[in-house]
Amino acid sequence: MKRPTVGVIGGMGPQATAEFYRRLVAMTPARGDDEHLHVLIDSDPSIPSRQDALAGRGKSPLARLIIVARRLESAGATCLAMPCNTAHAWYKELQEAVSIPIINMIEETVHVIRHTPSSPQELGVLATHGALHAELYEKAFGDGGPRLCVPDPEQCQEIMDAVAGVKAGSLIGRRQVAAVARSMLDRGADAILVGCTEVSLLIQPDDVEAEVIDSMSVLARATVSHILALTRALA
Amino acid sequence: MKRPTVGVIGGMGPQATAEFYRRLVAMTPARGDDEHLHVLIDSDPSIPSRQDALAGRGKSPLARLIIVARRLESAGATCLAMPCNTAHAWYKELQEAVSIPIINMIEETVHVIRHTPSSPQELGVLATHGALHAELYEKAFGDGGPRLCVPDPEQCQEIMDAVAGVKAGSLIGRRQVAAVARSMLDRGADAILVGCTEVSLLIQPDDVEAEVIDSMSVLARATVSHILALTRALA
Repeated sequence: MKRPTVGVIGGMGPQATAEFYRRLVAMTPARGDDEHLHVLIDSDPSIPSRQDALAGRGKSPLARLIIVARRLESAGATCLAMPCNTAHAWYKELQEAVSIPIINMIEETVHVIRHTPSSPQELGVLATHGALHAELYEKAFGDGGPRLCVPDPEQCQEIMDAVAGVKAGSLIGRRQVAAVARSMLDRGADAILVGCTEVSLLIQPDDVEAEVIDSMSVLARATVSHILALTRALA
Repeated sequence: MKRPTVGVIGGMGPQATAEFYRRLVAMTPARGDDEHLHVLIDSDPSIPSRQDALAGRGKSPLARLIIVARRLESAGATCLAMPCNTAHAWYKELQEAVSIPIINMIEETVHVIRHTPSSPQELGVLATHGALHAELYEKAFGDGGPRLCVPDPEQCQEIMDAVAGVKAGSLIGRRQVAAVARSMLDRGADAILVGCTEVSLLIQPDDVEAEVIDSMSVLARATVSHILALTRALA
Protein backbone atom coordinates (compact mmCIF):
# COMPACT_ATOMS: atom_id res chain seq x y z
CA MET A 1 0.00 0.00 0.00
CA LYS A 2 1.14 3.50 -0.84
CA ARG A 3 1.76 5.89 2.04
CA PRO A 4 -1.29 8.16 2.50
CA THR A 5 -0.30 11.45 0.90
CA VAL A 6 -2.32 14.53 0.10
CA GLY A 7 -1.67 16.37 -3.13
CA VAL A 8 -2.71 20.01 -3.18
CA ILE A 9 -3.76 21.56 -6.49
CA GLY A 10 -2.51 25.04 -5.67
CA GLY A 11 -1.91 28.46 -7.07
CA MET A 12 -5.55 29.57 -7.13
CA GLY A 13 -4.28 31.81 -5.69
CA PRO A 14 -0.86 31.22 -4.17
CA GLN A 15 -1.54 33.09 -0.92
CA ALA A 16 -4.72 31.07 -0.41
CA THR A 17 -2.74 27.88 -1.00
CA ALA A 18 -0.16 28.96 1.58
CA GLU A 19 -2.90 29.67 4.11
CA PHE A 20 -4.59 26.33 3.33
CA TYR A 21 -1.31 24.53 3.98
CA ARG A 22 -0.83 26.47 7.23
CA ARG A 23 -4.29 25.39 8.41
CA LEU A 24 -3.65 21.79 7.33
CA VAL A 25 -0.53 21.74 9.52
CA ALA A 26 -2.27 23.50 12.42
CA MET A 27 -5.18 21.03 12.36
CA THR A 28 -2.95 17.95 12.36
CA PRO A 29 -2.64 16.41 15.83
CA ALA A 30 1.14 15.94 15.77
CA ARG A 31 3.75 15.99 18.52
CA GLY A 32 6.67 16.30 16.12
CA ASP A 33 7.67 16.44 12.45
CA ASP A 34 7.22 12.68 12.02
CA GLU A 35 3.52 12.75 12.99
CA HIS A 36 2.56 15.33 10.36
CA LEU A 37 0.97 14.47 7.02
CA HIS A 38 2.89 13.84 3.85
CA VAL A 39 1.87 16.80 1.69
CA LEU A 40 2.72 17.53 -1.93
CA ILE A 41 1.78 20.97 -3.25
CA ASP A 42 1.83 22.05 -6.86
CA SER A 43 1.22 25.78 -7.05
CA ASP A 44 0.99 26.37 -10.78
CA PRO A 45 0.54 29.96 -11.99
CA SER A 46 -0.30 28.83 -15.52
CA ILE A 47 -3.78 27.55 -14.65
CA PRO A 48 -6.06 29.83 -16.71
CA SER A 49 -8.36 32.19 -14.82
CA ARG A 50 -11.51 30.44 -13.61
CA GLN A 51 -13.33 33.76 -13.56
CA ASP A 52 -12.54 34.55 -17.18
CA ALA A 53 -13.52 31.07 -18.32
CA LEU A 54 -16.89 31.15 -16.53
CA ALA A 55 -17.57 34.63 -17.89
CA GLY A 56 -16.95 33.32 -21.42
CA ARG A 57 -13.89 35.51 -22.02
CA GLY A 58 -11.04 33.03 -21.46
CA LYS A 59 -10.08 29.44 -22.06
CA SER A 60 -11.08 26.64 -19.72
CA PRO A 61 -8.65 25.80 -16.91
CA LEU A 62 -9.58 22.11 -17.13
CA ALA A 63 -6.69 20.90 -19.31
CA ARG A 64 -4.13 22.51 -16.99
CA LEU A 65 -5.93 21.31 -13.85
CA ILE A 66 -5.70 17.77 -15.22
CA ILE A 67 -1.94 18.15 -15.83
CA VAL A 68 -1.42 19.35 -12.24
CA ALA A 69 -3.63 16.64 -10.76
CA ARG A 70 -1.86 13.90 -12.72
CA ARG A 71 1.57 15.29 -11.81
CA LEU A 72 0.60 15.09 -8.13
CA GLU A 73 -0.73 11.57 -8.61
CA SER A 74 2.52 10.52 -10.33
CA ALA A 75 4.55 12.05 -7.49
CA GLY A 76 2.75 9.83 -4.97
CA ALA A 77 -0.44 11.60 -3.89
CA THR A 78 -3.19 9.20 -2.77
CA CYS A 79 -5.86 11.91 -2.60
CA LEU A 80 -6.18 15.48 -3.84
CA ALA A 81 -7.44 18.73 -2.33
CA MET A 82 -8.10 21.86 -4.38
CA PRO A 83 -8.41 24.97 -2.17
CA CYS A 84 -10.36 27.05 -4.70
CA ASN A 85 -14.15 27.06 -4.68
CA THR A 86 -14.58 28.34 -8.23
CA ALA A 87 -12.34 25.63 -9.70
CA HIS A 88 -14.89 23.11 -8.42
CA ALA A 89 -17.02 24.10 -11.42
CA TRP A 90 -14.76 21.55 -13.22
CA TYR A 91 -14.73 19.04 -10.36
CA LYS A 92 -16.55 16.22 -12.17
CA GLU A 93 -14.34 16.23 -15.26
CA LEU A 94 -11.19 16.58 -13.15
CA GLN A 95 -12.18 13.67 -10.91
CA GLU A 96 -12.78 11.52 -13.99
CA ALA A 97 -9.24 12.29 -15.21
CA VAL A 98 -7.42 10.84 -12.18
CA SER A 99 -7.69 7.56 -10.32
CA ILE A 100 -7.36 9.00 -6.80
CA PRO A 101 -10.18 10.78 -4.94
CA ILE A 102 -10.43 14.57 -4.98
CA ILE A 103 -11.92 15.75 -1.70
CA ASN A 104 -14.86 17.90 -2.77
CA MET A 105 -14.64 21.24 -0.97
CA ILE A 106 -18.18 22.26 -1.86
CA GLU A 107 -19.79 19.00 -0.75
CA GLU A 108 -17.74 18.88 2.44
CA THR A 109 -18.82 22.43 3.26
CA VAL A 110 -22.49 21.64 2.56
CA HIS A 111 -22.17 18.57 4.79
CA VAL A 112 -20.74 20.67 7.63
CA ILE A 113 -23.51 23.27 7.28
CA ARG A 114 -26.22 20.59 7.27
CA HIS A 115 -24.81 19.28 10.56
CA THR A 116 -24.15 22.63 12.23
CA PRO A 117 -25.98 22.60 15.60
CA SER A 118 -27.27 26.15 15.03
CA SER A 119 -28.98 25.02 11.77
CA PRO A 120 -28.73 28.29 9.84
CA GLN A 121 -31.88 29.08 7.86
CA GLU A 122 -30.33 31.69 5.62
CA LEU A 123 -26.67 31.82 4.62
CA GLY A 124 -24.85 34.92 3.43
CA VAL A 125 -22.51 33.65 0.72
CA LEU A 126 -19.21 35.47 0.22
CA ALA A 127 -18.09 34.25 -3.17
CA THR A 128 -16.76 35.47 -6.49
CA HIS A 129 -18.80 36.14 -9.59
CA GLY A 130 -17.65 32.89 -11.18
CA ALA A 131 -18.62 30.69 -8.24
CA LEU A 132 -22.00 32.41 -7.94
CA HIS A 133 -22.61 32.15 -11.67
CA ALA A 134 -21.81 28.41 -11.57
CA GLU A 135 -24.27 28.05 -8.64
CA LEU A 136 -21.88 25.64 -6.93
CA TYR A 137 -23.50 25.87 -3.51
CA GLU A 138 -27.09 26.06 -4.82
CA LYS A 139 -26.59 22.80 -6.73
CA ALA A 140 -24.80 21.08 -3.83
CA PHE A 141 -27.58 21.95 -1.37
CA GLY A 142 -30.30 20.99 -3.83
CA ASP A 143 -33.78 21.23 -2.37
CA GLY A 144 -34.25 21.61 1.35
CA GLY A 145 -31.03 23.49 2.14
CA PRO A 146 -30.87 26.90 3.80
CA ARG A 147 -31.82 29.95 1.72
CA LEU A 148 -28.74 31.52 0.13
CA CYS A 149 -28.29 35.25 0.33
CA VAL A 150 -25.87 36.26 -2.42
CA PRO A 151 -24.11 39.60 -2.93
CA ASP A 152 -25.83 42.17 -5.13
CA PRO A 153 -23.86 43.29 -8.23
CA GLU A 154 -22.16 46.16 -6.42
CA GLN A 155 -21.18 43.95 -3.47
CA CYS A 156 -20.00 41.27 -5.88
CA GLN A 157 -17.68 43.80 -7.49
CA GLU A 158 -16.34 44.75 -4.04
CA ILE A 159 -15.58 41.08 -3.35
CA MET A 160 -13.92 40.70 -6.76
CA ASP A 161 -11.72 43.74 -6.08
CA ALA A 162 -10.81 42.45 -2.61
CA VAL A 163 -9.93 39.02 -4.06
CA ALA A 164 -7.80 40.60 -6.80
CA GLY A 165 -6.00 42.49 -4.02
CA VAL A 166 -5.11 39.24 -2.23
CA LYS A 167 -3.76 37.74 -5.44
CA ALA A 168 -1.52 40.81 -5.73
CA GLY A 169 -0.38 40.50 -2.10
CA SER A 170 -2.67 43.00 -0.39
CA LEU A 171 -5.29 42.47 2.32
CA ILE A 172 -6.68 45.95 1.78
CA GLY A 173 -10.17 44.59 1.02
CA ARG A 174 -10.82 43.44 4.60
CA ARG A 175 -13.12 46.31 5.48
CA GLN A 176 -15.22 45.96 2.32
CA VAL A 177 -15.66 42.22 2.78
CA ALA A 178 -16.70 42.64 6.41
CA ALA A 179 -19.20 45.31 5.34
CA VAL A 180 -20.74 42.98 2.74
CA ALA A 181 -21.04 40.22 5.34
CA ARG A 182 -22.70 42.56 7.84
CA SER A 183 -25.12 43.82 5.23
CA MET A 184 -26.16 40.20 4.52
CA LEU A 185 -26.84 39.66 8.21
CA ASP A 186 -28.93 42.86 8.19
CA ARG A 187 -30.91 41.45 5.27
CA GLY A 188 -31.78 38.30 7.24
CA ALA A 189 -28.86 35.89 6.96
CA ASP A 190 -28.09 34.12 10.23
CA ALA A 191 -24.67 32.76 9.26
CA ILE A 192 -21.89 33.54 6.76
CA LEU A 193 -20.44 31.05 4.31
CA VAL A 194 -16.93 31.93 3.12
CA GLY A 195 -17.11 30.45 -0.35
CA CYS A 196 -13.83 31.77 -1.76
CA THR A 197 -10.38 30.91 -0.42
CA GLU A 198 -9.09 34.45 -0.94
CA VAL A 199 -11.95 35.72 1.20
CA SER A 200 -10.75 33.28 3.89
CA LEU A 201 -7.69 35.51 4.17
CA LEU A 202 -9.80 38.66 4.43
CA ILE A 203 -12.42 37.81 7.00
CA GLN A 204 -11.82 37.25 10.70
CA PRO A 205 -14.32 35.53 13.00
CA ASP A 206 -14.65 38.76 15.00
CA ASP A 207 -15.64 40.79 11.93
CA VAL A 208 -19.27 39.72 12.15
CA GLU A 209 -21.60 38.79 14.98
CA ALA A 210 -22.70 35.49 13.51
CA GLU A 211 -21.36 32.05 12.81
CA VAL A 212 -18.79 31.95 9.99
CA ILE A 213 -18.38 28.70 8.07
CA ASP A 214 -15.15 28.86 6.11
CA SER A 215 -14.85 26.44 3.18
CA MET A 216 -11.05 26.55 3.39
CA SER A 217 -11.05 25.36 6.99
CA VAL A 218 -13.66 22.73 6.15
CA LEU A 219 -11.46 21.37 3.36
CA ALA A 220 -8.37 21.38 5.60
CA ARG A 221 -10.21 19.49 8.34
CA ALA A 222 -11.70 16.98 5.88
CA THR A 223 -8.25 16.39 4.37
CA VAL A 224 -6.62 15.74 7.74
CA SER A 225 -9.46 13.33 8.67
CA HIS A 226 -9.17 11.50 5.35
CA ILE A 227 -5.41 10.94 5.66
CA LEU A 228 -5.51 10.03 9.37
CA ALA A 229 -8.31 7.49 8.80
CA LEU A 230 -6.25 5.85 6.04
CA THR A 231 -3.11 5.90 8.18
CA ARG A 232 -4.96 4.22 11.07
CA ALA A 233 -6.43 1.61 8.71
CA LEU A 234 -2.92 0.73 7.52
CA ALA A 235 -1.38 0.60 11.02
CA MET B 1 13.83 25.06 -21.89
CA LYS B 2 11.94 23.93 -18.82
CA ARG B 3 9.75 26.48 -17.07
CA PRO B 4 11.62 27.91 -14.03
CA THR B 5 10.16 26.08 -11.04
CA VAL B 6 11.23 25.98 -7.42
CA GLY B 7 11.05 22.70 -5.54
CA VAL B 8 10.82 23.02 -1.76
CA ILE B 9 12.27 20.23 0.36
CA GLY B 10 9.79 20.61 3.19
CA GLY B 11 8.56 19.10 6.41
CA MET B 12 11.50 20.23 8.55
CA GLY B 13 9.21 21.15 10.16
CA PRO B 14 5.86 21.52 8.40
CA GLN B 15 4.90 24.82 10.03
CA ALA B 16 8.24 26.32 9.03
CA THR B 17 7.66 25.11 5.46
CA ALA B 18 4.22 26.74 5.43
CA GLU B 19 5.69 30.01 6.65
CA PHE B 20 8.51 29.80 4.09
CA TYR B 21 5.94 29.34 1.34
CA ARG B 22 3.91 32.28 2.67
CA ARG B 23 7.01 34.51 2.58
CA LEU B 24 7.92 33.28 -0.92
CA VAL B 25 4.47 34.33 -2.13
CA ALA B 26 4.58 37.64 -0.25
CA MET B 27 8.01 38.51 -1.70
CA THR B 28 7.00 37.80 -5.30
CA PRO B 29 6.16 40.97 -7.21
CA ALA B 30 2.94 39.70 -8.80
CA ARG B 31 -0.25 41.47 -9.82
CA GLY B 32 -2.25 38.26 -10.17
CA ASP B 33 -2.07 34.45 -9.96
CA ASP B 34 -0.33 34.18 -13.33
CA GLU B 35 2.67 36.30 -12.25
CA HIS B 36 3.51 34.13 -9.24
CA LEU B 37 6.22 31.46 -9.22
CA HIS B 38 5.64 27.86 -10.06
CA VAL B 39 6.28 26.15 -6.72
CA LEU B 40 6.37 22.44 -5.90
CA ILE B 41 6.50 21.52 -2.22
CA ASP B 42 7.21 18.07 -0.82
CA SER B 43 6.61 18.10 2.91
CA ASP B 44 7.76 14.65 3.94
CA PRO B 45 7.37 13.66 7.60
CA SER B 46 9.56 10.58 7.18
CA ILE B 47 12.83 12.52 6.91
CA PRO B 48 14.78 11.32 9.97
CA SER B 49 15.53 13.83 12.71
CA ARG B 50 18.51 16.00 11.87
CA GLN B 51 19.09 16.65 15.57
CA ASP B 52 19.22 12.95 16.45
CA ALA B 53 21.57 12.18 13.57
CA LEU B 54 24.01 14.96 14.48
CA ALA B 55 23.92 13.89 18.14
CA GLY B 56 24.85 10.35 17.08
CA ARG B 57 21.58 8.81 18.27
CA GLY B 58 19.67 8.41 15.01
CA LYS B 59 20.13 7.55 11.38
CA SER B 60 21.21 10.07 8.78
CA PRO B 61 18.44 11.95 6.96
CA LEU B 62 20.53 12.01 3.78
CA ALA B 63 19.00 9.01 1.99
CA ARG B 64 15.48 10.40 2.47
CA LEU B 65 16.51 13.94 1.56
CA ILE B 66 17.87 12.57 -1.72
CA ILE B 67 14.56 10.78 -2.42
CA VAL B 68 12.61 14.01 -1.82
CA ALA B 69 15.02 16.12 -3.88
CA ARG B 70 14.90 13.69 -6.80
CA ARG B 71 11.10 13.46 -6.60
CA LEU B 72 10.92 17.26 -6.91
CA GLU B 73 13.39 17.22 -9.79
CA SER B 74 11.32 14.54 -11.58
CA ALA B 75 8.16 16.58 -11.04
CA GLY B 76 9.73 19.53 -12.86
CA ALA B 77 11.70 21.59 -10.34
CA THR B 78 14.59 23.52 -11.91
CA CYS B 79 16.07 24.55 -8.55
CA LEU B 80 15.59 23.50 -4.94
CA ALA B 81 15.21 25.33 -1.64
CA MET B 82 15.43 23.64 1.75
CA PRO B 83 14.04 25.83 4.54
CA CYS B 84 15.89 24.06 7.36
CA ASN B 85 19.28 25.29 8.51
CA THR B 86 20.33 22.08 10.24
CA ALA B 87 19.64 19.95 7.15
CA HIS B 88 22.34 21.97 5.41
CA ALA B 89 24.86 19.82 7.30
CA TRP B 90 24.18 17.38 4.40
CA TYR B 91 24.10 20.07 1.70
CA LYS B 92 27.17 18.93 -0.23
CA GLU B 93 26.12 15.28 -0.55
CA LEU B 94 22.54 16.28 -1.39
CA GLN B 95 23.69 18.73 -4.09
CA GLU B 96 25.85 15.97 -5.61
CA ALA B 97 22.79 13.69 -5.84
CA VAL B 98 20.70 15.98 -8.08
CA SER B 99 21.45 17.82 -11.31
CA ILE B 100 19.62 21.06 -10.41
CA PRO B 101 21.02 23.71 -8.07
CA ILE B 102 20.03 23.77 -4.40
CA ILE B 103 20.01 27.37 -3.19
CA ASN B 104 22.26 27.30 -0.14
CA MET B 105 20.46 28.95 2.77
CA ILE B 106 23.58 29.24 4.91
CA GLU B 107 25.73 30.79 2.18
CA GLU B 108 22.96 33.17 1.11
CA THR B 109 22.56 34.30 4.72
CA VAL B 110 26.30 34.81 5.14
CA HIS B 111 26.32 36.82 1.91
CA VAL B 112 23.51 39.05 3.17
CA ILE B 113 25.26 39.61 6.50
CA ARG B 114 28.55 40.47 4.79
CA HIS B 115 26.70 43.12 2.78
CA THR B 116 24.53 44.51 5.58
CA PRO B 117 25.16 48.27 5.73
CA SER B 118 25.35 48.16 9.55
CA SER B 119 28.27 45.64 9.33
CA PRO B 120 27.57 43.72 12.55
CA GLN B 121 30.76 42.88 14.47
CA GLU B 122 29.19 40.24 16.72
CA LEU B 123 26.17 38.15 15.82
CA GLY B 124 23.92 36.46 18.35
CA VAL B 125 23.05 33.12 16.72
CA LEU B 126 19.66 31.59 17.51
CA ALA B 127 20.08 28.02 16.37
CA THR B 128 19.49 24.45 17.48
CA HIS B 129 22.04 22.18 19.05
CA GLY B 130 22.53 20.28 15.80
CA ALA B 131 23.21 23.36 13.69
CA LEU B 132 25.61 24.76 16.31
CA HIS B 133 27.37 21.40 16.64
CA ALA B 134 27.81 21.23 12.85
CA GLU B 135 29.25 24.79 12.93
CA LEU B 136 27.35 25.64 9.74
CA TYR B 137 27.70 29.40 10.09
CA GLU B 138 31.27 29.31 11.50
CA LYS B 139 32.41 27.34 8.46
CA ALA B 140 30.49 29.48 5.98
CA PHE B 141 31.96 32.71 7.38
CA GLY B 142 35.46 31.27 7.56
CA ASP B 143 38.07 33.78 8.69
CA GLY B 144 37.22 37.43 8.81
CA GLY B 145 33.51 37.16 9.52
CA PRO B 146 31.79 38.70 12.53
CA ARG B 147 32.27 37.05 15.92
CA LEU B 148 29.49 34.56 16.63
CA CYS B 149 27.84 34.61 20.03
CA VAL B 150 26.20 31.23 20.54
CA PRO B 151 23.68 30.19 23.23
CA ASP B 152 25.07 28.67 26.41
CA PRO B 153 23.89 25.10 27.22
CA GLU B 154 20.89 26.29 29.24
CA GLN B 155 19.82 28.75 26.53
CA CYS B 156 20.36 26.10 23.88
CA GLN B 157 17.94 23.82 25.75
CA GLU B 158 15.40 26.65 25.88
CA ILE B 159 15.69 27.07 22.12
CA MET B 160 15.36 23.29 21.61
CA ASP B 161 12.19 23.25 23.76
CA ALA B 162 10.73 26.22 21.89
CA VAL B 163 11.49 24.57 18.52
CA ALA B 164 9.90 21.29 19.67
CA GLY B 165 6.83 23.35 20.62
CA VAL B 166 6.52 24.75 17.09
CA LYS B 167 6.77 21.26 15.60
CA ALA B 168 3.86 20.29 17.87
CA GLY B 169 1.85 23.36 16.84
CA SER B 170 2.59 25.73 19.72
CA LEU B 171 4.28 29.12 19.73
CA ILE B 172 4.58 29.07 23.51
CA GLY B 173 8.37 29.47 23.36
CA ARG B 174 8.24 33.05 22.07
CA ARG B 175 9.13 34.65 25.39
CA GLN B 176 12.09 32.32 26.03
CA VAL B 177 13.54 32.89 22.56
CA ALA B 178 13.23 36.66 22.89
CA ALA B 179 14.96 36.46 26.29
CA VAL B 180 17.85 34.48 24.82
CA ALA B 181 18.22 37.04 22.01
CA ARG B 182 18.20 39.95 24.46
CA SER B 183 20.79 38.26 26.68
CA MET B 184 23.06 37.90 23.62
CA LEU B 185 22.73 41.62 22.95
CA ASP B 186 23.58 42.27 26.60
CA ARG B 187 26.71 40.14 26.15
CA GLY B 188 27.89 42.29 23.25
CA ALA B 189 26.14 41.07 20.11
CA ASP B 190 25.01 43.92 17.85
CA ALA B 191 22.67 41.90 15.63
CA ILE B 192 20.69 38.64 15.81
CA LEU B 193 20.92 35.84 13.26
CA VAL B 194 17.86 33.60 13.17
CA GLY B 195 19.55 30.35 12.17
CA CYS B 196 16.61 27.97 12.59
CA THR B 197 13.38 28.13 10.58
CA GLU B 198 11.25 27.23 13.60
CA VAL B 199 12.76 30.18 15.45
CA SER B 200 11.64 32.34 12.48
CA LEU B 201 8.09 31.62 13.65
CA LEU B 202 8.89 32.56 17.23
CA ILE B 203 10.75 35.85 16.97
CA GLN B 204 9.26 39.15 15.87
CA PRO B 205 11.35 42.14 14.75
CA ASP B 206 10.00 44.13 17.69
CA ASP B 207 11.19 41.55 20.24
CA VAL B 208 14.73 42.92 20.30
CA GLU B 209 16.26 46.35 19.82
CA ALA B 210 18.74 45.29 17.17
CA GLU B 211 18.84 44.18 13.57
CA VAL B 212 17.43 40.70 13.02
CA ILE B 213 18.68 38.74 10.01
CA ASP B 214 16.33 35.83 9.40
CA SER B 215 17.73 32.97 7.32
CA MET B 216 14.22 31.93 6.25
CA SER B 217 13.51 35.34 4.75
CA VAL B 218 16.95 35.39 3.13
CA LEU B 219 16.25 32.03 1.47
CA ALA B 220 12.81 33.15 0.31
CA ARG B 221 14.23 36.34 -1.22
CA ALA B 222 17.11 34.47 -2.89
CA THR B 223 14.67 31.92 -4.32
CA VAL B 224 12.39 34.59 -5.79
CA SER B 225 15.43 36.37 -7.32
CA HIS B 226 16.77 33.13 -8.79
CA ILE B 227 13.47 32.23 -10.48
CA LEU B 228 12.73 35.75 -11.70
CA ALA B 229 16.23 36.10 -13.21
CA LEU B 230 15.74 32.82 -15.10
CA THR B 231 12.26 33.84 -16.21
CA ARG B 232 13.59 37.15 -17.54
CA ALA B 233 16.45 35.40 -19.32
CA LEU B 234 13.95 33.15 -21.10
CA ALA B 235 11.56 35.94 -22.04
